[in-house]
Amino acid sequence: MELNSVIEKKLKLGNLFDFYGQLLTTKQQDVLNLYCVHDLSLGEISEDLSVSRQAIHDTIRKCEKILDDYENKLNLQEKYNLRRKLVQDITSNLDEATKSDTIDKDAISIIKAQLSECLE
Amino acid sequence: MELNSVIEKKLKLGNLFDFYGQLLTTKQQDVLNLYCVHDLSLGEISEDLSVSRQAIHDTIRKCEKILDDYENKLNLQEKYNLRRKLVQDITSNLDEATKSDTIDKDAISIIKAQLSECLE
Repeated sequence: MELNSVIEKKLKLGNLFDFYGQLLTTKQQDVLNLYCVHDLSLGEISEDLSVSRQAIHDTIRKCEKILDDYENKLNLQEKYNLRRKLVQDITSNLDEATKSDTIDKDAISIIKAQLSECLE
Repeated sequence: MELNSVIEKKLKLGNLFDFYGQLLTTKQQDVLNLYCVHDLSLGEISEDLSVSRQAIHDTIRKCEKILDDYENKLNLQEKYNLRRKLVQDITSNLDEATKSDTIDKDAISIIKAQLSECLE
């Protein structure tokens, strides 16, 4: 596996850990916290927690599967990304609608409709 | 238990089912779907699914516990309610800021700050 894909995989895992970490056991959270947040190597985590490197490796693989399953069912990360894009769009539409001194009422209506989409 | 509190409990369960239903087993989803969405009685569900009334009762109690646990850990419903309140506030602030023909730039800045809170 290339370095970039290792890092990408770790980033992806860290993102899912942000959303669903509370659903993991305390031990799993400890491992992922050291791995994704503190960016320690398997060897360092193994030493820190006095557990074999293989056990740490297995825990990380298992957590990847668990967190992927949660995302497949609840889509929290996907929904968050859509909401982030929407908020960016609303903000720039608001800038556009209010950049002159007079108000573009139609643009404001569109913004209000977009706002309600934040709740979907 | 009074009628109102039975209905309130069912409503609360239905709301949590909306957020976390995908994390239940198919059988649990079937029961809650009949109970919360179609509003059937335990007896009707028991007949529909050819399962004892007691088993349906136990499933519902168990699901209540599971869904409460998920909400205690992920707070999706609480976060949604906060976001709904925020979107209402932003919408009325936007109405206020754009009701005259000239733009209240300070109000627009506040709205933009509120928008970013939709991502918290």
